Amino acid sequence: MPARVYLDWNATTPLRPEARAAMAAAWDLAGNPSSVHAEGRQARRLLEDARAALAAAVGAASRNVAFTSSGTEANVLALAPGLRSGARGPVQRLLVSAVEHASVLAGGRFKPEAVRRIAVTTSGVIDLEDLRRQLASGPPALVSIMAANNETGALQPVREAGEIARESGGLLHVDAIQALGKITLNINEIGADLASLSAHKIGGPKGVGALVVAEGLSGLEPLLRGGGQELGRRAGTENVAGIAGFGAAVTAAMAAGNTEARRMEGLRDQLERGLRRSGGLTLFSEQVARLPNTTLFTAPGLKAETAVIGFDLEGIAVSSGSACSSGKVQPSHVLQAMGFDDKIAQGAVRLSLGWSTSEADIDCCLEAWRKLASALLRD
Amino acid sequence: MPARVYLDWNATTPLRPEARAAMAAAWDLAGNPSSVHAEGRQARRLLEDARAALAAAVGAASRNVAFTSSGTEANVLALAPGLRSGARGPVQRLLVSAVEHASVLAGGRFKPEAVRRIAVTTSGVIDLEDLRRQLASGPPALVSIMAANNETGALQPVREAGEIARESGGLLHVDAIQALGKITLNINEIGADLASLSAHKIGGPKGVGALVVAEGLSGLEPLLRGGGQELGRRAGTENVAGIAGFGAAVTAAMAAGNTEARRMEGLRDQLERGLRRSGGLTLFSEQVARLPNTTLFTAPGLKAETAVIGFDLEGIAVSSGSACSSGKVQPSHVLQAMGFDDKIAQGAVRLSLGWSTSEADIDCCLEAWRKLASALLRD
Repeated sequence: MPARVYLDWNATTPLRPEARAAMAAAWDLAGNPSSVHAEGRQARRLLEDARAALAAAVGAASRNVAFTSSGTEANVLALAPGLRSGARGPVQRLLVSAVEHASVLAGGRFKPEAVRRIAVTTSGVIDLEDLRRQLASGPPALVSIMAANNETGALQPVREAGEIARESGGLLHVDAIQALGKITLNINEIGADLASLSAHKIGGPKGVGALVVAEGLSGLEPLLRGGGQELGRRAGTENVAGIAGFGAAVTAAMAAGNTEARRMEGLRDQLERGLRRSGGLTLFSEQVARLPNTTLFTAPGLKAETAVIGFDLEGIAVSSGSACSSGKVQPSHVLQAMGFDDKIAQGAVRLSLGWSTSEADIDCCLEAWRKLASALLRD
Repeated sequence: MPARVYLDWNATTPLRPEARAAMAAAWDLAGNPSSVHAEGRQARRLLEDARAALAAAVGAASRNVAFTSSGTEANVLALAPGLRSGARGPVQRLLVSAVEHASVLAGGRFKPEAVRRIAVTTSGVIDLEDLRRQLASGPPALVSIMAANNETGALQPVREAGEIARESGGLLHVDAIQALGKITLNINEIGADLASLSAHKIGGPKGVGALVVAEGLSGLEPLLRGGGQELGRRAGTENVAGIAGFGAAVTAAMAAGNTEARRMEGLRDQLERGLRRSGGLTLFSEQVARLPNTTLFTAPGLKAETAVIGFDLEGIAVSSGSACSSGKVQPSHVLQAMGFDDKIAQGAVRLSLGWSTSEADIDCCLEAWRKLASALLRD
C-alpha cells in the first residue's frame, strides 16, 4: 500500500508512543486491581497514577475521576436525573445544545420528554439567550454543552453557560472530549460540575474514557452495578492497560501543550489557504474561535460521500462529519442545527490534524483536492 | 522481587502471547471502525474477525455477539425486563441463583422488587426444585445462572435450568465468564438465550467482555445509546485492540482446549492431595463436578484475610473468594448461600490455576502452606 496521509484525528488518533510504552508495561502485570496481593497492588498503582495524571490535567481531585469504557459511557453516566451540588439541583430535566455528540443528544438516563435542545447560531455556537429563556421557567436543569464541536471545531461558551445554569439552580456537564489536549481545560475555571473525557482523541487507546466531577457533586447513580470498583461509581474489572495508556497520553499531551497546538494551527491555516483557491469554498464556523486542528468545508456541488471516497483513493483519510456512528453518511446534524439545508449538510468534508501531521501531509492533501475538485465540483 | 507464583487465575489471568501479538498489531491501525476510509475498514475487519472467533467458540452467529467493556457490563446489558424469544416472554422478573457474581445479584436493569434468589445446596449447586417452585406462578421470568461458580468452581445445571425456564415461558441467561475456555460451552446445547463472556479470564485483556444472544432473542435495549456501533446494541467507539486481543485469546484457548484443562486438573488434584495433609481440611464443592482449575478450601481456625497476606509474603498470589470488588475481605456470599456460618465464610482461601501453572508452582504453594498452616491454624 502506498504511503497514506491520515487527516481524521477528530474521529480517532494514532497512539502516542508514550501510551504504547505504558500499555506494554501494564501487560506484564498479571493482577486484578481489586486483589490484595502484590500483583493486585501493582495493578492498582497503575490505575491510581493514571487517575492522578488525568485529574491534574483538568484541575480535578483524583477521587473525583471515574474511568469508563468510552466518552459515550462517560456521557451516559453523567446525564442522569437527581444530580445535585450544594443548593443546586436535584436536576429534573436536561438541556443539550443541538450540536452535541449523538450520545448526549440521546439524553443519557433522562426520559425523552425531559430533554430539550438549545439552538445554535449559523456559526455553530450555542445561543446563550435561548439557554437563558429555557432555564427561566421549570425545574432545575442539567445543561450539557461540549467544550468544542467535533465537526466544526467551534469552541463553545461553556463558562458563560455554566454561570447561567448556576443562577437558575442548575448544573453544567461539559463534553470536553474534543477539547482535551488542544485547548486549556480546567473544570474549576469553566465551572463544570461534570466533564467527559476520552483517551483515543488524545493519543490514548480506543475504549477508555473518564467522567470527572467537581467537588460537591452528589447523586451520581452508577450505570454498572456489581463490584465496588471506581469508589462504587462503576462496577467491573478495570481496563488496566488502557487506563495506563490514557494516563501516559494525557501526560504527553499536557507536556506538548500549547506548542503542539500552535504548530497544528499553522498547518491548518496553510491547509485552509490552499483549499480557498477553489471557487466558492465555505469554511464552517470560520467566524468564531475554533480548535486549532479542525477544518470543515464544502464547495458548490460537493457530495461528502463521494469526496471521502475520492480522498481515500488518493491515499488521504478524511471524514464527512462525525464518524462515531455506523459508517453511513447522513446529513450532518450539526450543520442542520446551524441552519444549513440538507444538500449542504450532506456536502461537508472534515479535515482534522494531529501532532504527527506534517507539511508534506498538507501538500499531499491539497494536491489531492486540486485533482478531485475539478471532478467533484463539476455540476 | 523474588520469583512469584500466581494462583489467582479466577480473579484475572496473565495475557496469552497470542493476545499480546494481536493487540500490538492493532495498535498500528489508526482508524476508527466507523470511518469509511481504508484505515477505518482495517480497524473494522479486526473487530469482525474477533467477533467471528468468539461466535465460533460458543456456537453463536457473529451477528449475535456484542462486545462490551467487561463481564459486568455484559451482565447488566443482559438483565433487563422486556426480553422475549418466540412465544416466550416478555420477561417481567428476574430469578438469580444465590451464588451469582455481584453484578448479577445487583439485578441489572430490573427493579429490586422484581428480583428473587434461587437457593443452592451445601455443595453450591443450584436447587432446581426451588427454581421450579418459583417459576410455577407469576409472570414470565428471566433466569440467570452461571455456568461455573467463580469461588468454588462448581458447575451448574444450566441446561436443566434452561428447560425449566422455557417450560414456564421464561428465558435463560448464563454467566459463562468462568467457564469459557475451561469446559465445553455451546449456547445452543445449553439452551441459553443470552450468555456473558469476559476476555481477562481466558488470557485476553482486562476491560473487554461480550454478550452473546441466541437467534430469535428480541427486546434487548441498549445500555449505552448514541452512535450506531455493535448493530445499535452498544454505542461508543470500540476497544479495537482489546477486542482483537479477546479474539486471539479465545482462539488460543479453543485450540488448547481439553488438553490444557486436563493438565490443570492434574495439577489441581496434586494440590488438593497436598493440602489434605493438614488436619480437618474442608474442600468446598468437592462432591460435585467442578472447573478443572479451582480449589476453595478452609481449615479449622483459618482466617482468609491473614492467609492471603501470609501466602503473599511467601510469594504466592491467592485469593479469598471473589476479587471483583473493593479489595475488602468480607464473608463469601457464596459460602453463606451454601449454608456455612460467617466464621467459615470468612475463612476460605481460593487457589486457581491456569495454563502456565507448573508443578513447581504447586510445590511452592504446598511448601508455603505447610509453613503457614502451623501458624495460621494454631487456635
